[in-house]
Amino acid sequence: MESREELAKKSREFRQWYYGRDPKLSPVAEPVAEAFQLINETLFGHIYQRPALDVKTRSLCTIAALTVLNREKQLPGHITGALNCGATKQQIVELITQMLFYGGYPCTVNSLQAAYETFQAYDKEHGKS
Amino acid sequence: MESREELAKKSREFRQWYYGRDPKLSPVAEPVAEAFQLINETLFGHIYQRPALDVKTRSLCTIAALTVLNREKQLPGHITGALNCGATKQQIVELITQMLFYGGYPCTVNSLQAAYETFQAYDKEHGKS
Amino acid sequence: MESREELAKKSREFRQWYYGRDPKLSPVAEPVAEAFQLINETLFGHIYQRPALDVKTRSLCTIAALTVLNREKQLPGHITGALNCGATKQQIVELITQMLFYGGYPCTVNSLQAAYETFQAYDKEHGKS
Amino acid sequence: MESREELAKKSREFRQWYYGRDPKLSPVAEPVAEAFQLINETLFGHIYQRPALDVKTRSLCTIAALTVLNREKQLPGHITGALNCGATKQQIVELITQMLFYGGYPCTVNSLQAAYETFQAYDKEHGKS
Amino acid sequence: MESREELAKKSREFRQWYYGRDPKLSPVAEPVAEAFQLINETLFGHIYQRPALDVKTRSLCTIAALTVLNREKQLPGHITGALNCGATKQQIVELITQMLFYGGYPCTVNSLQAAYETFQAYDKEHGKS
Amino acid sequence: MESREELAKKSREFRQWYYGRDPKLSPVAEPVAEAFQLINETLFGHIYQRPALDVKTRSLCTIAALTVLNREKQLPGHITGALNCGATKQQIVELITQMLFYGGYPCTVNSLQAAYETFQAYDKEHGKS
Repeated sequence: MESREELAKKSREFRQWYYGRDPKLSPVAEPVAEAFQLINETLFGHIYQRPALDVKTRSLCTIAALTVLNREKQLPGHITGALNCGATKQQIVELITQMLFYGGYPCTVNSLQAAYETFQAYDKEHGKS
Repeated sequence: MESREELAKKSREFRQWYYGRDPKLSPVAEPVAEAFQLINETLFGHIYQRPALDVKTRSLCTIAALTVLNREKQLPGHITGALNCGATKQQIVELITQMLFYGGYPCTVNSLQAAYETFQAYDKEHGKS
Repeated sequence: MESREELAKKSREFRQWYYGRDPKLSPVAEPVAEAFQLINETLFGHIYQRPALDVKTRSLCTIAALTVLNREKQLPGHITGALNCGATKQQIVELITQMLFYGGYPCTVNSLQAAYETFQAYDKEHGKS
Repeated sequence: MESREELAKKSREFRQWYYGRDPKLSPVAEPVAEAFQLINETLFGHIYQRPALDVKTRSLCTIAALTVLNREKQLPGHITGALNCGATKQQIVELITQMLFYGGYPCTVNSLQAAYETFQAYDKEHGKS
Repeated sequence: MESREELAKKSREFRQWYYGRDPKLSPVAEPVAEAFQLINETLFGHIYQRPALDVKTRSLCTIAALTVLNREKQLPGHITGALNCGATKQQIVELITQMLFYGGYPCTVNSLQAAYETFQAYDKEHGKS
Repeated sequence: MESREELAKKSREFRQWYYGRDPKLSPVAEPVAEAFQLINETLFGHIYQRPALDVKTRSLCTIAALTVLNREKQLPGHITGALNCGATKQQIVELITQMLFYGGYPCTVNSLQAAYETFQAYDKEHGKS
C-alpha cells in the first residue's frame, strides 16, 4: 500500500507533465483542500499511473467521456494531456467524431471546436505557427 | 469516394466479427431499414474502419462513453467487441474504474456489473470456465 | 385565470384519454399528493391543453425528449398517448430513429424496443393481433 | 437504394434551405471530412427527407431534444430551421416550455433565452424589426 | 386546497426573498406567461413552502442537482438562495465537492467557479469586501 | 494529514453503519481493488466525515443527485443511509418530488418507486410491517 506522501508526489508530477502545468482550483475551494488532495492522489497519483492501461489510451478515453457529456471547459486540459502523451491531432479528431454516434451531433461539434482552439494554443506554446 | 455497396459490405463483416454476430434491430424498425442501413454504413463501414485510430482504442473509447452515459444495455456488445479486438479484461475494468471521476460512482458500479456478466458469457462461448 | 377545480378536471379527463387510464403514483407519494395535484393541473390541465400547439405534436416532442434522455419506463405511456392522438406507428418509429443523431445510437435502440412492446400491447388491447 | 451522389445533393440543398446557409465545421475536422460527408448524407440527405414525418414536426422534435439535453449552441440553427419550415415563434416557445417537465426548469430557461436571441436575428435578417 | 391567488402570492414573496429579486423570464415567454404562472405557483408557492423539509435543505439539494447536471447558469440564483436561507459558504462548497463522486470532476470544478463568482457578488451586495 | 490506515478504518465503519452493510463490488473489480480502496477512503473515510456539513444533509443531497441522474440502482443504498441518518420517509419523498423541476417528471416517478421498495425492505428488516 502506497503512502499518501508517495501518491501526492506522483499526482503533482503527473499533473505538471500531463497538463503542462498544475491546474489550480478556484480560491473558493480552500476549505476543502484536503478533500481535493485525496481526490488528486487517487485519480492522478494512482489511477492514471496504473500500468495495465497506458496513459495515452486513458487520456483518449477521458476525451471520449468529456465529449459525450459535453464538458467543453475540461476538454482543453485533457486534449493537451493527450498530445503530451503522444496522441496525434488526427487521432483526437477521429475520436471526437466517432462519439457523434454515442452522444449526438451537438456534443461532437462543440468538442471539435474545443479541439481546434486547444490545438492552436498548443502549437503557439510549442513554437509552431 | 467509396460506394454504398462497399460500405455496406464492410459494415456487415465488421459487425459480424466485432460483436460475434450481426445484431438485429427490433422488427418495429422495418419501415426505417434504409435509414439504419445508412447509419451502419457510416459508423461501422467507414468510421470504425478509418486507419488513423486502431479499432481496439476506438472500442475502449466507446466503452468509456457508454459507461459515463450509463447505457448498460449496450455495454455487453461493445465489451465483447473490445475483447475481440484484443483488449484484456483488466484493461476494460481499468477503464470503467477511471470513468468514476467523469461520470460518477454509480455509472461505474453499473458498468462493472455489465462487464462481469459479459466476461462470463464470453468465457462460456469460448470454452473457458 | 382558470380555477384549480377547472384545471384538475381537465387534467383528469386528459390523462384518462391520453394514457387510456389515469396512471397512479406509488403509495409512497401519498404525503405529497397535493404537490402532484398541482403538477398535474399545470402540465396536463393547462400545458397539454394550450391550443397553440396540437396535442399530437406535443406528444411526439415528449417522445423525442424521453428518447434522448433514455427514459425507457416512461415511453410506453407517451407512445400510447401519441397513438391515441392519431400518430401512426411509423411516425413514432421515424422520430425515435432521427433522435439517434441527438442522443446517440444506444438510446434509439432502447426506445425502439420500448415502442415494439408498446405497439404489441396497444394492438392486443384494441383487438388487433 | 439511393446513390451517395443523390444523398449528398439532397443534403446540401436541405441544409442550405433549412439553416439558411450550409454550416461549416471547424477546420480541425478536415481529416474526417469523408466521415462528416457520410453523416450528413444520412441525416440530412435521407432521414430529414423521409416523407412519413413532415419536416416541421421533425424540426420541432429536434428542438425538444436539444432543449432537454441543454445543447444551447445548436438551438439557433434548429430554431431557424423550424421557422423556415413554417413553425411559428409561439409554437417553438410552447414546446420549450413543455420540456420543463421532462428536462427541468434550467434547460427551459436556457432554451428560451436561445429562442429570444434567434428570433431577433431571424427578424433582422428577414427585414422585420 | 389553496386557491391560486394564495399560491401566487406565496410564490412572489418567496422568490423575492430567496433570490433577492423576482427573476424575470425572457420577453419571448410572454405568450406562455400563464403556464409559467402555474409552474411558479406549484414550485415556489407550494413545494418550497412545504414544512416537512426545511428551505435550507431544499436549497442545498437543488444545488446538488444543478451541480451534477452541470447547469452553471442556474447556480448563482440558488447559491444566493441558500445563503439567504442561512447556509454558510463552506457548506455550499462542501456539497459541491461531494458531488464529484456522483456527477464527475468536471461538473464540480465548473460549479465551484460559479460559487466563487456568486459569493463575490453576494458580499459586494451585502457590503463585505 | 490523516494516514491511509485511519481513512480506511473510518470508511469501513461508516459504510457498515450507513448502508447497514459494507457493499461488495462485483468480483470483476478485484484487479482494481487498490483503486477502489483509495476511492472509498476519500469519499467515505474523509468527505462524508467532514463536520462542516452533517451526514443527514449530505445523504439527502446525494439522493437529490441520484434522482436527477436517474441512477435507480444506487437509490436503495442511499435511501437506507438517509433513514439511518435520521431522515424521515416523508423528507425523502419531499425531496424526490422537488427534483421533478430539475431533472423532470420521469426521474421523479422512477425514484419514488425506488423509495417505495426501499422503505418496505427497511421496515421488514427493522421489524415493522
